[in-house]
Amino acid sequence: MKQLQVLLVAGTHGNEINGIWLFDEWKKSSFLINTYGIKTIKVIGNPEAKKAGKRYIHHDLNRSFKEESFLSINSSTFEERRASQLVNLYGETGENPCQIALDFHTTTASMGSCLVIYGRRGADLALASLIQHKLGLPIYLHESDQKQTGFLVESWPCGLVVEIGPIGQSLLNWRIISQTKLILENLMEQIHQVQNLNLFFPDKLTIYRHIKSIDFPRDGEGNINGYVHSQRQSKDWQELKKNDELFCKLNGEITRFEEDEPYIPVFINEAAYVEKNIAMSFTKRELWNLKKEWKQSLIDLVHQR
Amino acid sequence: MKQLQVLLVAGTHGNEINGIWLFDEWKKSSFLINTYGIKTIKVIGNPEAKKAGKRYIHHDLNRSFKEESFLSINSSTFEERRASQLVNLYGETGENPCQIALDFHTTTASMGSCLVIYGRRGADLALASLIQHKLGLPIYLHESDQKQTGFLVESWPCGLVVEIGPIGQSLLNWRIISQTKLILENLMEQIHQVQNLNLFFPDKLTIYRHIKSIDFPRDGEGNINGYVHSQRQSKDWQELKKNDELFCKLNGEITRFEEDEPYIPVFINEAAYVEKNIAMSFTKRELWNLKKEWKQSLIDLVHQR
Repeated sequence: MKQLQVLLVAGTHGNEINGIWLFDEWKKSSFLINTYGIKTIKVIGNPEAKKAGKRYIHHDLNRSFKEESFLSINSSTFEERRASQLVNLYGETGENPCQIALDFHTTTASMGSCLVIYGRRGADLALASLIQHKLGLPIYLHESDQKQTGFLVESWPCGLVVEIGPIGQSLLNWRIISQTKLILENLMEQIHQVQNLNLFFPDKLTIYRHIKSIDFPRDGEGNINGYVHSQRQSKDWQELKKNDELFCKLNGEITRFEEDEPYIPVFINEAAYVEKNIAMSFTKRELWNLKKEWKQSLIDLVHQR
Repeated sequence: MKQLQVLLVAGTHGNEINGIWLFDEWKKSSFLINTYGIKTIKVIGNPEAKKAGKRYIHHDLNRSFKEESFLSINSSTFEERRASQLVNLYGETGENPCQIALDFHTTTASMGSCLVIYGRRGADLALASLIQHKLGLPIYLHESDQKQTGFLVESWPCGLVVEIGPIGQSLLNWRIISQTKLILENLMEQIHQVQNLNLFFPDKLTIYRHIKSIDFPRDGEGNINGYVHSQRQSKDWQELKKNDELFCKLNGEITRFEEDEPYIPVFINEAAYVEKNIAMSFTKRELWNLKKEWKQSLIDLVHQR
């Protein structure tokens, strides 16, 4: 039986610096973070972008983990090459294989701390449920979005994104660092519990299921001509009612929420999503039963069966 | 007598986008902002940096207005050429001369809205006093800092910087836009009052005089190894007492304020100042009498005598 190894990633986006800083400090003081005896590999996702003080060099690394990018190490962009390199080094069948990937991000949206999972993989859902049970974090299920694909964690058998905000890009903040450390240690503790078969899975988990994203108001030339309404700014996770304000223009014109469903907005005014034409995303809150096979999938993975 | 012309600048830093966005909207709807009949010229300070989503291309444009940069239009860096170009176009003796420059900035620090003046020029102090009298904004007097020179407004006979925060870089926010618009219109109104000799100067003005800047804690290799303490983060303008917390390291080590004077910190954790080795600046609050010659200096300038 091989030993479990967990890949810990910070700085997948070069201007999300709090996790990078925490990892750098950790390198200097190995006792800083308790990994409960589990072997980990720590990497800075996009060190070149970090150096440049940017999110990425050519394009978003966290949309670059696509099969076609891996056909050749000679891919044309920096991020495609980096994605390929990370998978070759630390992927499930890589040189130094990891079975679980944990990817630490920050956001300019007032999301607090949350977990993001991509698709409905059993091991992801089981691990997320353990953290939700322990810390109460919301789980954002990203799926059914053909425009947003190629996320890092999808290239590992199990993987979660941790998002913490609000924090400006390239800004170090004690609260963000403390929360990153807290969630990282709790993730390691829960994986350790699964190793020891001390299983504290909840019966149910609350999921915020991605429905769709909406763009800012734009003029005829495609320029943004309205901003997030004051009643909506920083109101992530707060249910929308029909006619609630979404956007405002300087002439006072208001765009309102006109859906019948009480969607819940997330990633409201995330600076990096402007170029993706996303002003916010709508989710639906659902209470799911935790399936036995999801738990089994996580247990099998951790025990390398 | 020549006509008064006011230069309005947004985007001197390319990732401070709220003022740029306001100017763009203003271009589409000329009635959007009341300039009280005063002729204005609106420019984006660093349009190349805006396009690149960065503060600057080669170095900070707002430190590039130095006499040596103006010796030649063939200066080596983009920002030196741009500074030279702006002065040649809109300087006091330029092709399309402006007498007053108003430069709109944002900061990631929790500064609220404030005015920044550079040195003790009479017209600057008089105009700032009018805005302080009307809106109550604090005035930060930047002086005696040989490391920070070459500010845009210094190249005009009268000029103020408006700083509004907190806002992350490259992030549009209704509150920042509204405050920018409010202060811009009040500045134009006050200049208009001086034109009409409707003079409402206060007797005194409160100045936050720059004393010095302090750096983050750093390790032997020069890397930042401590962050702004939770008790200090977002506490701009709040007087420091001896032994107040300034910085914290992950091992719990605290750096404290050890001065005898009750300095007042500003620009706490401004993202763009990390590279300038500035974690925050200390100021001293002083109540100054408004001198008659300062008022006269502003009146003469506005009336082009």
